[in-house]
Amino acid sequence: MSFLHIKRRGLLFILSSPSGAGKTTITRALLEQDNQLKISVSYTTRQPRPGEVDGQDYHFVSKDEFDQMVENNQLLEHAKVFGNYYGTPLMPVEKALANSQDIIFDIDWQGTQQLKQKLVNDLVTIFVLPPSQQELERRLRARQQDDDVIIRERMKKASDEISHYSEYDYIIVNHDLSRSIATAQAILEAERSKRRRITDLPNFVRTLMQEN
Amino acid sequence: MSFLHIKRRGLLFILSSPSGAGKTTITRALLEQDNQLKISVSYTTRQPRPGEVDGQDYHFVSKDEFDQMVENNQLLEHAKVFGNYYGTPLMPVEKALANSQDIIFDIDWQGTQQLKQKLVNDLVTIFVLPPSQQELERRLRARQQDDDVIIRERMKKASDEISHYSEYDYIIVNHDLSRSIATAQAILEAERSKRRRITDLPNFVRTLMQEN
Repeated sequence: MSFLHIKRRGLLFILSSPSGAGKTTITRALLEQDNQLKISVSYTTRQPRPGEVDGQDYHFVSKDEFDQMVENNQLLEHAKVFGNYYGTPLMPVEKALANSQDIIFDIDWQGTQQLKQKLVNDLVTIFVLPPSQQELERRLRARQQDDDVIIRERMKKASDEISHYSEYDYIIVNHDLSRSIATAQAILEAERSKRRRITDLPNFVRTLMQEN
Repeated sequence: MSFLHIKRRGLLFILSSPSGAGKTTITRALLEQDNQLKISVSYTTRQPRPGEVDGQDYHFVSKDEFDQMVENNQLLEHAKVFGNYYGTPLMPVEKALANSQDIIFDIDWQGTQQLKQKLVNDLVTIFVLPPSQQELERRLRARQQDDDVIIRERMKKASDEISHYSEYDYIIVNHDLSRSIATAQAILEAERSKRRRITDLPNFVRTLMQEN
């Protein structure tokens, strides 16, 4: 058996953060530069927005179809957000894990907790923090024309999300975006070298120790 | 409190491998490129070899001095090799850990086990494997003019060392040296971002969540 054929189990790479901390930008950069990484496409009951592609941005389904998936245990996690349902399908994840493919998830602490209950050994969880409260507020103001009441609500929601930082394995304080992306990539690289993920290792080691 | 001042606890970076797998070359490369990393200087009772500098290559001490250190619990681990004693001093390690400084150790599985008993939460352990038995033998033959009997003995010792691979967190199969160095560096970088090592994190998070 050659070292080139040592198989590893894929991993589930979870990035969470308050909105405005930079999670989505980091996720996009990783997807562009890392070809072992795919994003999980969620199922949703909400209507497609202009430009959204079924099967690429989301799998768009009816409420009945969604309920059926929940009932058949076909979803790894699901949640109701602003009256619409969103869920992560189980099967593509299982398939990816078996094929050394890693999946990235852009989900909140509640989704993370649901995934932990089912696939805890395959999860790698990262929480992205803003460098300061002032900077988070600046970023939230910069991207939307919201009034002060809305901004205050968003800051409050950010605090709620941040309060769950201690449920995550890794912390990235996103001060310098390119450094944050490099750190996230290093975490991926390191986790792929974890002994317990390299499923074929006992066989490979046996070939190293054979008497000849 | 600014994100620039978040303190983390240093870590103990342990590389083990059978001789000939490339551990020493990887260690040297990391020391050159990573300024947060220092190597642990051991105490030994053996005589200095020509060119070796006291306090840099080793701290050279008498058998009495060494015994005294063992008795006073001043060594993290120690071993007898070919009639000489070698040991890792505790104090510089404790100091480094408190000062966000990382220390690299080039020790075998027995030293690793001793360190685990004392500082398990600070350890990051990597086992370096050769890409094949043939390649390991080729490397052993290339660097010494040993006869077949000696080579066979070295291969046997390599097998003994390899049999402990499963006591390590990470595995690097050293096929391509520059890739192996990059992976070791990524593991360092990732481990520095582990939440539990960032000692000041609760204080920092508090500043993010303050009402203003």
